[in-house]
Amino acid sequence: MTIPLGYRFAATYAGIRKKPNLDLALMVSDHEAAAAGVFTRNLVRAAPVVLCEEHLRASKGRCRAIIVNAGNANCATPTMMKVAKATARATAKAVGAPINRVLVSSTGVIGVPLNENLILDSLPALAAGLSPHRFPDVALAIMTTDTVPKTASAEIETPQGTVRIAGMTKGAGMIHPNMATMLSYIFTDAAIAAGPLQAMLKKAVGRSFNRISVDSDTSTNDTVILLANGGSGIAISRSSRDAFEDGLARVTESLAIAIAKDGEGARKLVTIDVEGAATEHDADTIARAIANSPLVKTALAGADPNWGRLLSSAGASGATFDPSKVDIYINGILVCRRGFRADFNEPEVQKTMEAAEVQLRFHIRGEGTGKARFWTCDMTEDYIRINAEYRT
Amino acid sequence: MTIPLGYRFAATYAGIRKKPNLDLALMVSDHEAAAAGVFTRNLVRAAPVVLCEEHLRASKGRCRAIIVNAGNANCATPTMMKVAKATARATAKAVGAPINRVLVSSTGVIGVPLNENLILDSLPALAAGLSPHRFPDVALAIMTTDTVPKTASAEIETPQGTVRIAGMTKGAGMIHPNMATMLSYIFTDAAIAAGPLQAMLKKAVGRSFNRISVDSDTSTNDTVILLANGGSGIAISRSSRDAFEDGLARVTESLAIAIAKDGEGARKLVTIDVEGAATEHDADTIARAIANSPLVKTALAGADPNWGRLLSSAGASGATFDPSKVDIYINGILVCRRGFRADFNEPEVQKTMEAAEVQLRFHIRGEGTGKARFWTCDMTEDYIRINAEYRT
Repeated sequence: MTIPLGYRFAATYAGIRKKPNLDLALMVSDHEAAAAGVFTRNLVRAAPVVLCEEHLRASKGRCRAIIVNAGNANCATPTMMKVAKATARATAKAVGAPINRVLVSSTGVIGVPLNENLILDSLPALAAGLSPHRFPDVALAIMTTDTVPKTASAEIETPQGTVRIAGMTKGAGMIHPNMATMLSYIFTDAAIAAGPLQAMLKKAVGRSFNRISVDSDTSTNDTVILLANGGSGIAISRSSRDAFEDGLARVTESLAIAIAKDGEGARKLVTIDVEGAATEHDADTIARAIANSPLVKTALAGADPNWGRLLSSAGASGATFDPSKVDIYINGILVCRRGFRADFNEPEVQKTMEAAEVQLRFHIRGEGTGKARFWTCDMTEDYIRINAEYRT
Repeated sequence: MTIPLGYRFAATYAGIRKKPNLDLALMVSDHEAAAAGVFTRNLVRAAPVVLCEEHLRASKGRCRAIIVNAGNANCATPTMMKVAKATARATAKAVGAPINRVLVSSTGVIGVPLNENLILDSLPALAAGLSPHRFPDVALAIMTTDTVPKTASAEIETPQGTVRIAGMTKGAGMIHPNMATMLSYIFTDAAIAAGPLQAMLKKAVGRSFNRISVDSDTSTNDTVILLANGGSGIAISRSSRDAFEDGLARVTESLAIAIAKDGEGARKLVTIDVEGAATEHDADTIARAIANSPLVKTALAGADPNWGRLLSSAGASGATFDPSKVDIYINGILVCRRGFRADFNEPEVQKTMEAAEVQLRFHIRGEGTGKARFWTCDMTEDYIRINAEYRT
């Protein structure tokens, strides 16, 4: 794990969640950084999301600090905007920056007022504890139903020298294209202006966080933030942009896969490749339908090579294709040929499906060149248990 | 239970499913009936669905017999059309009608060849056993993961006398608007021409079977057939049409609710009412999103009054509304007022949610007059168990 230069991190237990685990985190750039953000498209938006967008507009994409709490989404309560603003104001004061240089996130239960004093009282000690080495603490503090912290990093060689990217994420249930109940913070010490940074982030999110699905629901608080503070002294130029974007893609893809793998109750990471669709949009629609189908996901839990459910989900997706041109592979074994059952050994395929990773390939012969990759997980009894008992 | 005049029914065990339960059923009208059908919109269509549409076209909406098997969907195999045609041909011969007066259905596993001899060998005895009293046997024979047979009937008074409607249905998982893995057969002894009969069925299905959801998946074999044989000697006229349509709506709604209530692993029937949306389409979109949300359905399983999940699902549905205008009621108790938590007693609401029926009301203040009602069920650990072990 490599940590970009010029950032410091801290986390503490502020008493927001019941269990005494870290629940408040602060991330600070020593110097003002360029900032990009991608947020939920849900019509119901938590105050922190609204405030982040306001601050990014007002600062023209500049940021000094990010403050995040877990245990309460600060959403759908009359006080939510007041609390988000008070949090930003106190954080700005603690780091010595204008309020619009602070970004705020919350994750947890919806509709329960968040007590701002828990945050304000913890801020001085939190700020005093900032260190480049506490990145892993923040990854722990933002977890909700996650079972493991999720981080990724990359070093990118440019003609001017090495730049670093490090990211963390949380999110286990409600994960769906358009980033449900998902938070992610990514830092680089490259120097990049806010405009291109936003374009790079949007592209990277489209190919990672928007291609995973745990339970097809989308949330009110989803946030991905990318900061570039130039701490390495190296600016990304036209010639190094591709290398940087590759590195960013590796980090976001790795974080997205970690979320799918840690889906609530999941035992398996499932990769879905669709190829040969008429358009990229059709490929995307088919992959998404398969990734979201409870019938496919329960068959995966049972190691059942039930390719009929894949074919049926694709057929109901709204995408157009000829079922008699479809080949389906499970872990590289042809199970459906031209829309019909292929000649395969069922126990053998079942056996391969008991592994921790399953590959599904949906190949259409000759409709076009549209392709898409999605990641999802199996749906187990534990998913139900976790979600039926979330608040009780 | 009232059975329309002029129909006979029979069911037997033909050896198609492993357990020796009834799996083959025949339904015959003594005289040729007008026939209407509504079928799956899945791109992947089982041969029986394709054949039904061909026969209804060729016969201009006339039918003598319906033959149905459970235990095998006769879908996505190279032999599927050959088997469906052989089944229709043998049935036509057994009842003495042209082949296009026979409609065929199948339900069960996809992608496994159906052995037509099992059906052909059973047909003579099946035809010999036809009786007006064996309607309940057919309702049993078409079951797959259903735990109870599902039937409904109505008697409608017209100025000319009484006409009767009786229907049956099956379908427990994969149920979703657009009728997934759902079969339904409805019979009336009123005389109605095929054209108006088709219009009546389409309207009734839109307000019943297309407003339920078990797991948001849609199937390859969904079929609703309505026969009108005039066995009562009474024709539906302009003056009695409304009364007839009301009776038909009662039957289809009752059958649809029975499916939602018997959803795989379900312990609760959930009714969702959306009111005050900008348009009927928006109301429909919101109700459908709530009905399909795994997070809402698991909260219902846990008797958790988690109105934030309802609000968030609606917000992610694609419909447009102002969250600050939303009131949400659970079993008549206001839990969310203008987008915020209402002042309610949580244990009291939880208590009401432990009942076998739960009412959710999503009321938007002043966007418009759009409203929609959907039925769904809770999602329990048993749903996973049933679907992970379906074929093993």
